[in-house]
Amino acid sequence: MSIASTAARPSNATRDIPGPARPLAPTALRPLPLSEVRLGEGFWLDRQHANRDVSVPDGLRQLHDAGNLRNFEIAAGRAEGEVLGPVFADSDVYKWLEAAAWEYAREPDESLLADQLRITELVAAAQQPDGYLNTVVPVREGRRYGNPQRDHEHYCAGHLIQAAVAQKRATGRDDLLNVAVGVADHLVREFGPASATGSAGDVDGHPVIETALVELYRETGTRAYLDLAAWFVDARGHRTLERFGGNSTYLSDRVPVREATTVEGHAVRAVYLTTGATDVAIETSDSGFISTLAAQYEHMAVTKQYVTGGLGSRWDGEAFGDPYELPSDRAYAETCAAIGAVQWAWRMLLATGDASYADQIELLLFNGFLAGVSLRGGDYFYVNPLQVRHDAHADDERTPKNGRLRWFGCACCPPNIMRTLSSLGGYLATSTADGLQVHQYVPGTLRAATDAGQLEVSVTTDYPWDGRVRIAVQNAPETPVTLSLRIPLWAEDATLDGAEVEAGRYAEVTRTFAAGDELELVLPMSPRVTRPHPRLDAVRGSIAVERGPLVYAFERADQPEGVVLDDVSVDPESLTEAEAPALVPGLVGVSLRTRDGAELTGIPYFAWANRGADDMRVWLPEA
Amino acid sequence: MSIASTAARPSNATRDIPGPARPLAPTALRPLPLSEVRLGEGFWLDRQHANRDVSVPDGLRQLHDAGNLRNFEIAAGRAEGEVLGPVFADSDVYKWLEAAAWEYAREPDESLLADQLRITELVAAAQQPDGYLNTVVPVREGRRYGNPQRDHEHYCAGHLIQAAVAQKRATGRDDLLNVAVGVADHLVREFGPASATGSAGDVDGHPVIETALVELYRETGTRAYLDLAAWFVDARGHRTLERFGGNSTYLSDRVPVREATTVEGHAVRAVYLTTGATDVAIETSDSGFISTLAAQYEHMAVTKQYVTGGLGSRWDGEAFGDPYELPSDRAYAETCAAIGAVQWAWRMLLATGDASYADQIELLLFNGFLAGVSLRGGDYFYVNPLQVRHDAHADDERTPKNGRLRWFGCACCPPNIMRTLSSLGGYLATSTADGLQVHQYVPGTLRAATDAGQLEVSVTTDYPWDGRVRIAVQNAPETPVTLSLRIPLWAEDATLDGAEVEAGRYAEVTRTFAAGDELELVLPMSPRVTRPHPRLDAVRGSIAVERGPLVYAFERADQPEGVVLDDVSVDPESLTEAEAPALVPGLVGVSLRTRDGAELTGIPYFAWANRGADDMRVWLPEA
Repeated sequence: MSIASTAARPSNATRDIPGPARPLAPTALRPLPLSEVRLGEGFWLDRQHANRDVSVPDGLRQLHDAGNLRNFEIAAGRAEGEVLGPVFADSDVYKWLEAAAWEYAREPDESLLADQLRITELVAAAQQPDGYLNTVVPVREGRRYGNPQRDHEHYCAGHLIQAAVAQKRATGRDDLLNVAVGVADHLVREFGPASATGSAGDVDGHPVIETALVELYRETGTRAYLDLAAWFVDARGHRTLERFGGNSTYLSDRVPVREATTVEGHAVRAVYLTTGATDVAIETSDSGFISTLAAQYEHMAVTKQYVTGGLGSRWDGEAFGDPYELPSDRAYAETCAAIGAVQWAWRMLLATGDASYADQIELLLFNGFLAGVSLRGGDYFYVNPLQVRHDAHADDERTPKNGRLRWFGCACCPPNIMRTLSSLGGYLATSTADGLQVHQYVPGTLRAATDAGQLEVSVTTDYPWDGRVRIAVQNAPETPVTLSLRIPLWAEDATLDGAEVEAGRYAEVTRTFAAGDELELVLPMSPRVTRPHPRLDAVRGSIAVERGPLVYAFERADQPEGVVLDDVSVDPESLTEAEAPALVPGLVGVSLRTRDGAELTGIPYFAWANRGADDMRVWLPEA
Repeated sequence: MSIASTAARPSNATRDIPGPARPLAPTALRPLPLSEVRLGEGFWLDRQHANRDVSVPDGLRQLHDAGNLRNFEIAAGRAEGEVLGPVFADSDVYKWLEAAAWEYAREPDESLLADQLRITELVAAAQQPDGYLNTVVPVREGRRYGNPQRDHEHYCAGHLIQAAVAQKRATGRDDLLNVAVGVADHLVREFGPASATGSAGDVDGHPVIETALVELYRETGTRAYLDLAAWFVDARGHRTLERFGGNSTYLSDRVPVREATTVEGHAVRAVYLTTGATDVAIETSDSGFISTLAAQYEHMAVTKQYVTGGLGSRWDGEAFGDPYELPSDRAYAETCAAIGAVQWAWRMLLATGDASYADQIELLLFNGFLAGVSLRGGDYFYVNPLQVRHDAHADDERTPKNGRLRWFGCACCPPNIMRTLSSLGGYLATSTADGLQVHQYVPGTLRAATDAGQLEVSVTTDYPWDGRVRIAVQNAPETPVTLSLRIPLWAEDATLDGAEVEAGRYAEVTRTFAAGDELELVLPMSPRVTRPHPRLDAVRGSIAVERGPLVYAFERADQPEGVVLDDVSVDPESLTEAEAPALVPGLVGVSLRTRDGAELTGIPYFAWANRGADDMRVWLPEA
């Protein structure tokens, strides 16, 4: 068991470091600043160390080798040659910069800071005098904003802005923020309500600018950025991108966000858009809009989400399918879509305080998201299927049968994973005027500023392997405050200090705490059989196995010789915990007996494909 | 019941009119010339009349309106403006010309002939002095053979050659043949063994030139065309198209045809290629190659074909999936792929005499192919799924939820359907030195030239509604000959003149026939429950209904009010024949009872979406 007391105190305690998404307007819950969260040894800190030690440094090499950085040198007039990569190549640099910034907040490293500032300087040098900044489109296409459906100029600007906000929050420096403000001011002049040009009616093919502009508003206080974000949200859904040859469904441009009842089209675009819309709704205190977005989220979670949390069932268009169209083999479930959904769910959680969004974040992080990166870091999946057949043929670099790759021609996922892991502390807990809410059970310390004063707790747990979570009060005000602990919907029969607590909501303890007080939460960790909704044709007659927040996968490497996973059927009654390879410390496996009496071994889905990529199934036919 | 004696005699009896694919080399079976086949009133003649009355004339209007014909006027210097349509726009004109030619063979019509010749003259006028002919690529791309992966120049040439061969056979005229010979001679100079240019290593992204060149060899006797076809077949599979940015799997360019064990990638390309390869194998009397192709066909039929015969389970790349990857909802099952498989199966049948290929042709024609066109003619499906959910959203013109369309931006399927229906007579029967083989049961007359003399029979049947088939000898040699009747693999307990005959092979009757002799074949027509292979995850726990050669579909319009097809489960024991809307004369419906006691009505799959397109399922969960 990890000992929380070995964790260092928050490292930047002298300065408040907001994490991703810091609302200015009142919300049900307030995020804890990154400076108030410290992860102790355990599952997620191991993931963060792999991210720091392998993924982030290797990502910088990849950005160099793939030409993304050189594109900036060319744009800055420091190099000559052809710009390389996809039209949105800049965005991968920005996502890496964001990861490096959050990593500095997590645990300062001067070498990584130097890299960050060196690239920041290069980015600044590539900016045009009027604020426009894109290294690919003007050179390769000879235009600015000429084809918003295709060119991703706002998308790149959005990721730049997010990186700049992260740098400002994490390091206190204005270097990249000044560039971002230049870009944003340029956009304000060119688009939206204040625009004086003919581009005023255009929205970008790939959302992200919306949430980015709201964050820049939060950081700078410049209202025009919020107004432009709101304008982008509402300008969408009117099929304007069809003028440029775009498919309205694919581009989330068929129905205005305020009228939509579901998410559709390209999954990443769709959830980035709803994330930005939620930010706009929060900052405009528009509760009706929040309700609309809540209905969309629910429709997505009920009808368009895999048991792993994965989103997007179609390779064609990297898109959401129709309701209940969720094939295991051709699941797209792009890693970036899981990340976008974490961002959306986090904002919905802040806006509503509804525990189901924290459940979603847990589901996504432990499964659909984490499967996207190897345990050692630096090897990635772009798509995350729930089944790989024995005879599957790899005809695309994204096909999992190819195994994990160090990088992709379209490399959106790797740096997106990096920035998510480095900012993970920002998604664990929140505060209110009168208390602290613990959403995710990660060992470490959490410090909330309540109206009555600081409430600091340490969390000790071997979660997700063990369901016992000890919360020890380190420091508390001398008046009553409330400590709220999420009881996941799957956690039936959970107990808090021995008393049963209801699943799917927060267990609240209100009292005058004193340092040394302890609470013990026990979440049931027996493996569970999950059966599909009757409309879910693709896995009819099959079961999945879950344990705690983890979905399990049956990978060929762990099965008895001669067992072909394509052909098995299993007895659900035989489900037990079992020995499994210790791919991460403490890993708990599961076992199921087949009709033929063979014992199958399952490992957590996030851990698959760390010994090569081979046959794998999440859903197994019931005998 | 149709009365065969009402059918007119073959119309061009004075001249032999070969249909599609007339081998020169010896084969197990020889096709009956179209002039020796006459369809009587019944199911397929109705389809041919709809084709003649609606599809073909409307197709000509569409080719005009979409700009395909105008492209030729521009290329001929008779018009100015921008060429329109996809890079392969010419091919749709050629497929229409082929349909018009076969239609002339079926039942001469001087007005349609005039249209055919007018367009032929226009095509000839667009040809370059050196034989090159393409109205789009040189103008739009400014190149010849500059990107074989993308530009479809051989593909268009192939369809031109096929149309020219059809015109020659059907009308006896050389107009289009002269153009085709010019194109083919140009290809011989530019590609393959005799080439003197740098293009020699290139194959086209989209096969069809291979089968076309073999047919031109058959028609002209020019060996260079066969040699070039063989060269194209063998030049493929070496990943040469990757030089042009192509995906080798998608383009059937990953594995040489002679080494392949399955079909993969873009389904239409794959089966067009194997069709051409089979033609090459036939004309080079390469029995080893035929065996290789037979193994590929079997792997396709067992692991990659829908119960409807449909081929291609992925929208992404219009492609074959992995073995047993056959989702109902996202089945692509392009109409053109079914057509290509008919062509391939026909050649394999000629080469081997194996009844399973005739079974395949029956399956394809009655189901996967015929669902692609409305019963009235002129309205098409590009893709042919086996399930349309209630909440399905149409985001693409190919999505069946949109209903049938009169034409498509990529209009490959409509004229492909036309040419198939107008040449249908060519796929029904064959001859050998000593007899006649009846593969498909269609009312009409068949006349075989055996070594002993002419054997002519009339076929009287209400197939596919009724399983009784009466074969009456009209004319026979005075020595013993063999009449072979295919007993479909599904036809257990079939009888011939009261005696049981084995399913999955030919029932043979060898005797000295005399005019007036009759045989009565009775094929069992009880509806059957079909269950999926255990690896077929997408329809586990579900059943399909078949009756005779027909697969059934359950369409919303025929179900009791309140029944949502997405939610039903059925009792297989309740399956019976039932009343159903008479969408075509004689239609026999089926009935299944749900767990809730509702009676569901099924109609043949080919007849679905003739009353709008709505919820539909082929596979129904078992209660």
